[in-house]
Amino acid sequence: MKLLEERIKKDGQVLEGDVLKINSFLNHQVDPKLMMEIGQEFARLFKDSDITKVLTCEASGIAPSIMAAYTLNVPMVFARKKKPSTLNDAVYLADVFSYTKKVNNKICVEKKFLSSTDKVLILDDFVAHGEAVKGMVSIAQQAGAKIVGVGAVVAKDFQGGSDWIKKQGLRFEALANIASFEGGEVHFVGEE
Amino acid sequence: MKLLEERIKKDGQVLEGDVLKINSFLNHQVDPKLMMEIGQEFARLFKDSDITKVLTCEASGIAPSIMAAYTLNVPMVFARKKKPSTLNDAVYLADVFSYTKKVNNKICVEKKFLSSTDKVLILDDFVAHGEAVKGMVSIAQQAGAKIVGVGAVVAKDFQGGSDWIKKQGLRFEALANIASFEGGEVHFVGEE
Repeated sequence: MKLLEERIKKDGQVLEGDVLKINSFLNHQVDPKLMMEIGQEFARLFKDSDITKVLTCEASGIAPSIMAAYTLNVPMVFARKKKPSTLNDAVYLADVFSYTKKVNNKICVEKKFLSSTDKVLILDDFVAHGEAVKGMVSIAQQAGAKIVGVGAVVAKDFQGGSDWIKKQGLRFEALANIASFEGGEVHFVGEE
Repeated sequence: MKLLEERIKKDGQVLEGDVLKINSFLNHQVDPKLMMEIGQEFARLFKDSDITKVLTCEASGIAPSIMAAYTLNVPMVFARKKKPSTLNDAVYLADVFSYTKKVNNKICVEKKFLSSTDKVLILDDFVAHGEAVKGMVSIAQQAGAKIVGVGAVVAKDFQGGSDWIKKQGLRFEALANIASFEGGEVHFVGEE
């Protein structure tokens, strides 16, 4: 997605440890018009998949996912990182390993919001090692739902998450695919 | 907002301790069309306030706020509950007391995303005791920004948050105002 790649080049900061900081339009301050464009692009890519639910993870996945769900006209479910006090009902749980903090965290989705009749599009802001996606795939599988594919706003293709998704036989669409940060610059897959 | 009140009556669950659970369309599973209606209503209410930023708090504030920001055509900033590893720059910090967990948590906003030239609309999903709003008001004040008002998707008027906001001289708009949960039912302010 050209618009997104240009925005990453313009406003992204490459930090040590292959970290891309794009918190001026996605992770902290959010550009709503860009989120709508992103949501519409996901909806276009998966328009023939009869999606019934968009599944994402709090917090940074919510803004792009609600726009995709809006365009697809289906509900969005966001997995919670902590079980809220009002969440006393049966839940699906999955572990998500955090590479930055070197710990396993749990994510959860209340059982009544995902079922075996659902066709789920899993979306997230970043796919790097793919840990959050692995957790969401597990949750969708526990529900017996069909996963129609996985979408990332940004994928760091060299960190293994994209490969893991494809190895599961799942369709994977990233709107911006980063090949490397060589020389402290963002290089996209397929770029000259 | 009639549409929202009807939805709360239809899908909300009243739990012990004056807790309203509306996680089938707002806090966990999210109805994107309703979020757009809510965002448009906030935009309509504050249309003459020359808003430059919408400020909310992760995670449940994001969906309604991104729709308000989309309609107002301004950026949204969501306060983080944990300082992310990529957030090394100067931040505004505020305490938020959690009544359910009886602890103070910090929220933070990177300084470059709020300044004294901003006119800020603070939005959140729920205003009960108003603790998250107090934290966001503090952050906007630390930035020297003008707060044009506070909006809540749902206010529990009897728990003090609404009063606190008005006592600060701030405009407060709640799209659904709950007066009580007498008899385990939701009663809105002004309802027969």
